[in-house]
Amino acid sequence: MPHDLTAPLSGKPQGPLSGLQAAVKDMYDIAGSRTGGGNPDWLRVHAPAPATAPAVQRLLDAGATIIGKTVCDEFFFSLAGMNAHYGTPLNPRAPDRLPGGSSSGSASATAAGACDFALGSDTGGSIRVPAAFCGIFGIRPTLGRVSLAGVMSMAPSFDVPGWFANGPGVFEQVGKVLLEGERVHAPVNELVILDDACAEADADLVSVLRNALHDMGRDLPNLRHARIAPNGLDAWRDIFRIIQASEVWQTFGEFVEKHQPRMGPGIRERMQFAASVKASDVAKARADHAQARAHIHGVAQPGKVLVLPTAPCIAPLLESSFDNLESFRVRAMRLTCIAGLGALPQVSLPVGTVKGAPVGLSFIGWRGADEVLLSLAVKLARYCGRAG
Amino acid sequence: MPHDLTAPLSGKPQGPLSGLQAAVKDMYDIAGSRTGGGNPDWLRVHAPAPATAPAVQRLLDAGATIIGKTVCDEFFFSLAGMNAHYGTPLNPRAPDRLPGGSSSGSASATAAGACDFALGSDTGGSIRVPAAFCGIFGIRPTLGRVSLAGVMSMAPSFDVPGWFANGPGVFEQVGKVLLEGERVHAPVNELVILDDACAEADADLVSVLRNALHDMGRDLPNLRHARIAPNGLDAWRDIFRIIQASEVWQTFGEFVEKHQPRMGPGIRERMQFAASVKASDVAKARADHAQARAHIHGVAQPGKVLVLPTAPCIAPLLESSFDNLESFRVRAMRLTCIAGLGALPQVSLPVGTVKGAPVGLSFIGWRGADEVLLSLAVKLARYCGRAG
Repeated sequence: MPHDLTAPLSGKPQGPLSGLQAAVKDMYDIAGSRTGGGNPDWLRVHAPAPATAPAVQRLLDAGATIIGKTVCDEFFFSLAGMNAHYGTPLNPRAPDRLPGGSSSGSASATAAGACDFALGSDTGGSIRVPAAFCGIFGIRPTLGRVSLAGVMSMAPSFDVPGWFANGPGVFEQVGKVLLEGERVHAPVNELVILDDACAEADADLVSVLRNALHDMGRDLPNLRHARIAPNGLDAWRDIFRIIQASEVWQTFGEFVEKHQPRMGPGIRERMQFAASVKASDVAKARADHAQARAHIHGVAQPGKVLVLPTAPCIAPLLESSFDNLESFRVRAMRLTCIAGLGALPQVSLPVGTVKGAPVGLSFIGWRGADEVLLSLAVKLARYCGRAG
Repeated sequence: MPHDLTAPLSGKPQGPLSGLQAAVKDMYDIAGSRTGGGNPDWLRVHAPAPATAPAVQRLLDAGATIIGKTVCDEFFFSLAGMNAHYGTPLNPRAPDRLPGGSSSGSASATAAGACDFALGSDTGGSIRVPAAFCGIFGIRPTLGRVSLAGVMSMAPSFDVPGWFANGPGVFEQVGKVLLEGERVHAPVNELVILDDACAEADADLVSVLRNALHDMGRDLPNLRHARIAPNGLDAWRDIFRIIQASEVWQTFGEFVEKHQPRMGPGIRERMQFAASVKASDVAKARADHAQARAHIHGVAQPGKVLVLPTAPCIAPLLESSFDNLESFRVRAMRLTCIAGLGALPQVSLPVGTVKGAPVGLSFIGWRGADEVLLSLAVKLARYCGRAG
């Protein structure tokens, strides 16, 4: 864990998270400490934060101790979990593989037992993918249900703070502290397995997920199979990609042009792409997004939970080629764009392994279903680790 | 998780463990449920427990939910984590390897994320070894500091309830709920690496532990090297083995003779040995134990913490031969007998991996140092997962 925060920050002595140890992605302000966003040039030119992000403050007020800040992918613009400047955080559950990102260090610290839970963020999969790769619980909440104040932006149409945990109880308890805004309660009466999402994933991974769902059977409502994306998931991925890139440039373009920061492989190319996106393409993508979102909301009605692989594969090997990582990113975003475009909450559960590496099973709920998904995770956790 | 406890038992709505999910080794009584001790014949002939073990009740009163009972090695008489009747619980961190035992299912459930923490017990290493093999935190408390009421006996001179956790905060919080009796506080001012214990362990494993200690350097007092066992650890192991066997026969002999239970490989042979131990050998072992204990207490003075590998190797492969497992047991008990004979507390931290399988670093404290060791674990947890 790099940067200015050297000593742990103790929380209040009493509270629902009393005694728990937490790590925080280097994207959240902590008063007196600089926020780096995974890039050393950003770190260098920014002053220490004047105040602590409310999400972090809530954790401290609830009794948690902040043990430090964690490395993340630069500008949060990657799902791989590599950082060319600070190094790649260890995937403790598959040491020869990447941890996933961009909330890489938070996932790594949690999976290693360095902490009980950790804050990250998710724009295009940055909580969900590392949760799956590192074999831990992870949630991307409903857009807007956790405060983004004092948190670096990436692409505001999709940015959500989220968290990882090693155990189901801690996972749920953190939600009780962080979630605000509208909670929409409904009993889960239907699970819909997204066949088009499953078709994007490796067969052996899907087989582990099927076994897990089979084991969970008596604790689940009836399962139904359906496709979600009328024109294919790749079309949705492309909408996501255009809007994300255009917003990334709005967020970071001025800084990049002024400071010409060093950027690692992949990040550099994507930032160039972000600079080049045409206004007409963005306009079309926003119109398509409205349509996709309406479609997704039509499916994700209260009471209905969508089931899919969190990631299409196990974590890529550390020595993966640039091309392999690009191809992994494309495949992963076909799955992660669903909750992203829909602004929906999604939890990933560590249900088993393929070739010894963790795989995640995801549940997407309706807007405001965050508490329902966390409670579902607690109920289904007893099946974790059995499949594979 | 086998047996009678099918629905989770909810704890009180408020408390220091509120919302946390726990599993319990099938050795603790839960009112209305039968306690099986890993053997189906024991389970069959015993009635449901009239009351819940106080240790379990404390967890419920503190707000934890009990999600179920976990498989263990039969009569707790193994460190391997196999059960010939119920199957071998998965080692989620090394699926091709054994989980370690006898608190196998509790370690497995914790490492898998099925729960936040789990109760086990430790006579000759039954918490420490599976904690190391499954890559989680584990504590064998000071003898007598956690209630054994309503818990099956094995060898009362050494039996201690203990627990596993995935994260350091949960690990410490459980101690605040379960530990009773005399707490002996002192600042840790010296760490003593036990060279004779390290010499029993595989070189690549010791190398990972040395790297971890090196990383932890600035958070540790000065390190010193020393040997602990004047006549070799094997002599201490033999003392432990004789007393343990004689007490196991006192505990289970009548049942074994009356019911002739089916027993799996290894357990059967050790139970036969237990039946055959001579009173004269036990008398000599008890005298030697008194001497060894005095020696250990002379070393483990308040303020001094002993450092050693939790286990001498990574978890044996699932397909290990009988002879390999016997040899593993002998090697492991050369390390585990130290805290056992001394009635001392020991914590194991998941500091890294060898060949992708977890290894544990152990700290042994003085009698009553349990809270100090848990606090040390919290302080050092930030280094977990970095070495290897």
